[in-house]
Amino acid sequence: MTDKPVSINIDRLRRDVEALAAIGRGPDQGIYRMAFSEGDLAGRRWLQSQIEAAHLDYFEDGAANQHGRLAWDGQSPSIMIGSHLDTVPGGGPLDGALGVLVGLEILRSIQESETPLRHPMEVVNFTDEEGRFGGLFGSQAMAGQLTPAMIHEARDLEGVSLTEAMAAWGMDANAALFARRPRDAIKAYLELHIEQGPVLDRGDISIGVVEAITGLFKWEVTLKGQTNHAGTTPMHMRQDSFQGLAEFAFAIDRILEEHGSPHSRATIGRVELSPGAANTVPGSTAFSLDVRDTDADVLSNLSDAFRRTLSALARRRQLMFEFEVLSEITPQRCDAGLVQLLSDKARALDLKHMCLPSGAAHDAQIMASMTRTGMVFVPSIEGRSHSAAEWTNWEDIERGANVLLQASLSLAVGTGETLR
Amino acid sequence: MTDKPVSINIDRLRRDVEALAAIGRGPDQGIYRMAFSEGDLAGRRWLQSQIEAAHLDYFEDGAANQHGRLAWDGQSPSIMIGSHLDTVPGGGPLDGALGVLVGLEILRSIQESETPLRHPMEVVNFTDEEGRFGGLFGSQAMAGQLTPAMIHEARDLEGVSLTEAMAAWGMDANAALFARRPRDAIKAYLELHIEQGPVLDRGDISIGVVEAITGLFKWEVTLKGQTNHAGTTPMHMRQDSFQGLAEFAFAIDRILEEHGSPHSRATIGRVELSPGAANTVPGSTAFSLDVRDTDADVLSNLSDAFRRTLSALARRRQLMFEFEVLSEITPQRCDAGLVQLLSDKARALDLKHMCLPSGAAHDAQIMASMTRTGMVFVPSIEGRSHSAAEWTNWEDIERGANVLLQASLSLAVGTGETLR
Repeated sequence: MTDKPVSINIDRLRRDVEALAAIGRGPDQGIYRMAFSEGDLAGRRWLQSQIEAAHLDYFEDGAANQHGRLAWDGQSPSIMIGSHLDTVPGGGPLDGALGVLVGLEILRSIQESETPLRHPMEVVNFTDEEGRFGGLFGSQAMAGQLTPAMIHEARDLEGVSLTEAMAAWGMDANAALFARRPRDAIKAYLELHIEQGPVLDRGDISIGVVEAITGLFKWEVTLKGQTNHAGTTPMHMRQDSFQGLAEFAFAIDRILEEHGSPHSRATIGRVELSPGAANTVPGSTAFSLDVRDTDADVLSNLSDAFRRTLSALARRRQLMFEFEVLSEITPQRCDAGLVQLLSDKARALDLKHMCLPSGAAHDAQIMASMTRTGMVFVPSIEGRSHSAAEWTNWEDIERGANVLLQASLSLAVGTGETLR
Repeated sequence: MTDKPVSINIDRLRRDVEALAAIGRGPDQGIYRMAFSEGDLAGRRWLQSQIEAAHLDYFEDGAANQHGRLAWDGQSPSIMIGSHLDTVPGGGPLDGALGVLVGLEILRSIQESETPLRHPMEVVNFTDEEGRFGGLFGSQAMAGQLTPAMIHEARDLEGVSLTEAMAAWGMDANAALFARRPRDAIKAYLELHIEQGPVLDRGDISIGVVEAITGLFKWEVTLKGQTNHAGTTPMHMRQDSFQGLAEFAFAIDRILEEHGSPHSRATIGRVELSPGAANTVPGSTAFSLDVRDTDADVLSNLSDAFRRTLSALARRRQLMFEFEVLSEITPQRCDAGLVQLLSDKARALDLKHMCLPSGAAHDAQIMASMTRTGMVFVPSIEGRSHSAAEWTNWEDIERGANVLLQASLSLAVGTGETLR
C-alpha cells in the first residue's frame, strides 16, 4: 500500500457517467439501452474501450457478460464488483450504469495506487438485468442457474427470441451455459446501486448498507359476486365484488401491523372491474397483490393472514374468490461479514450511513446464491427511478464509491477483516 | 259497464309479447331494437298494424311517438298508458315492450266490454327511451322539455346524429318540438314495467306500486398521490391513491347508515388505476360514484357526507382529489292519489303488493312533470334486466295488467276515485 489512502477520482467517474448517459439517449431524454438493442451494443463497445484504455484485461463470457480484470492470474479467487449497463425503455443514467462505472473507477484507482493485491479484482457488466428477455440473465448464467430450456424460451414483449437477438449481433445464446463460474472462483461480490426508493434521501443519509434483498409473493385475485343495476338493487341484496376488494385493501395496514415486520410492503397496483360501468354493481373484480419482506417466515405469515382475510370477507359477502400465484421469490440475506465491513468503512470515512433492505431485484441477489455478497445504496433523489429524472448528488456518488473502494481493497489485499 | 268485471286476455297478450320478441332478435337471443334501427322500425310497423287491427285510432306525433286511441274526441283529457318498444343492444323481451303491449291489451279489453268512457284512452310507444340518442326522447318531447339545440346535438356512440337517423326513415327530427301536449290534455299517465331489481321476486310479491322515482348524482372522482416502486417505498412514505379509494369505498355503508334512507344506494362501478402495474404504487385512481335516493334532501345530505369523507381522507393521506358532477337528476314522487288507487285495485284483486321506489329511469318520471303519474312494477326473476335472460312469470304479468286495467278503467269512467 502507498502511504496516502487510495480514493476514487470523482472527475473521471463523472466524465464516464456523462459519456455513457449520452449513449442510447432518446429525444425524451430517457435512455434506451435494452439488452441487445443498438443502444446496448453501443454502450458495450464504449465499456470495452474504457476497460482497454485503463490497461485492464478485457474478457467476455458466453452470456455476453463483460469483465475488466486487474491482477488476473487465472487461479486465485477474485473480488468482483458488478452491476449492469442495460436499461428499461426510457430509463435513467444511473440505474445499473453507476455500479459498473464505480467498479471500473475502483479498479483504475487501485491500479494507480500500485497496491499489491492478494486477490485479483474484476468489474462486470451483467447482461439483461432489466428484463427485455426476463431479467438477471447474465448473473443467472454466472451462478449456473440457466437451463437450455430457459435460453430457448426467452422472448421479449414483441416476440423476438433471445437466440435471434443474440445471433443478430454474432453471439450464440447457448454459450451462456458456459458462463458458469465455480463457487470458489469468486471470493466476494460487491455491488453499488441507487436506492430507487426514498429512505436515504428523506433521511439525508449518504450510504445505505443492504442487509437483505426482499422476497415477495405476487397474487392475481378475482372476487366474483353478482352484476346488478345500481339503481334497482338495494344495498343488502348486493354481492358487490368491488366492495369486497375495498374491505380487503382497507385491511392491509392492519394485517401488516399484526403479521408483518417494519420491512413489510403490500401493494394493490392493478384493479379491473367487470362490467365496469358507473351504473352497474360490478359482478367481478380482479386485482394484483404484491407483498414483500426480507424474512421468509414473515412472508409466510403474511400469506396466511391475507388468505384468511380474503376467505372471511368473501364468505360474509357471498363472493367467490380465486387466486393465482404469479410469482414467489425467496428473500436473500447479504453476508453479515460484508455488512459489517461496509458499515465499518462508512464509519471510518465519517459518513452518515444506515442498514436497510433492498426492495427491488438486483444481480446481487443471484450472486448471493454462489458467494458472499454485499451491496451499497446511494440516495435516489425523491426516490425516483426507471425514469429520465432519476438522479443522485455527485457528493453521494463519491462517498458511495469510496466506501466500496475501501471495502473491496481490504478484501483484495486481505488485511484484517475476516469473512465468515 | 257490463255485468261481469272486465279483465285482460292473457293468451292474446302472450301472443303479442312473443310476436314482438321475435322482431330484432339477434343470434345471441338478445333483442336489438335500438331507436331508429331496422329492428325498431320493424317493431313500430308491427305495433301500428296491431293498433289498426284492434280498430283503435292510430296517431304518430312529431317525435315519432306512436299512439293507439280509444273513444278519442280530440277534446277531453285522456288517460294515457305508455312505455317503449326500443331496447338496449342485446336487451330482453319485456323491458318497455311489456308496458306498451299491456296498454294495448287494456284498450282492446275495455273496447270489447263496451264500457262507456268519460275520458278517451291512449296507449303510447315512446321514442328512444333507452338512449341510443340520449334517452327519454319521446316523453321529453311530449312534456315540452326538448329544445332545438338538444335535437341538433343528439348523437349515438358511433357519431350518427338523431337528425340523420330520423331522416333516413323519412322523419324530420325538428318536428319533435311539435309533439308537446298541453298540461290539461292528459288526465293521468300510467305505466307498467318490469322491476329490473330483485325486491318483488325475492319477496314473492306480484305487484309493486311505485311511490317515487329515485333521483341521483353521479360523480367522476380522481385521487392523486405519488407513483412509486412497490418494493422500495416503505408503507409510511406512500401516497397511495388506491388506498384512498379503498378507505372511501369501505366508508360507503357507514355513510348510508348515518345520512341515508332505506332507499339510498351508492355504487362504485368503474375504477381506473394509473399506471396500473402490479409492482407500482398507483399514483392516480379515478372512479365513478353513483348515489340514488327518492328524497332530494337525503341526496343533498349524502352528497355533503361523501364530500366530507373524501376531503378528510385525502388530507390525511396527502392525496389531491378532484371531482366532476357527471349528472344530477331530481327525485320524482308519484301521484299519491294514483298510488292509493293502484294499491286499492291490487287489494281488490286479492294480490300481494307493496309500495317501492323505482331505482331506474322511466318515461313516467318525465311524464310526472306534466300530469298525475302512477307506475306498477311486476317482478323481474332474479332481478335480471337489460339481458336476454330477463323474464317475468305469465301469472304476474296477468296480475299486473289487470291492476292497471282496473285503475285506468276507473279513471276513464270517472267512478268514485278522486285525484288530488
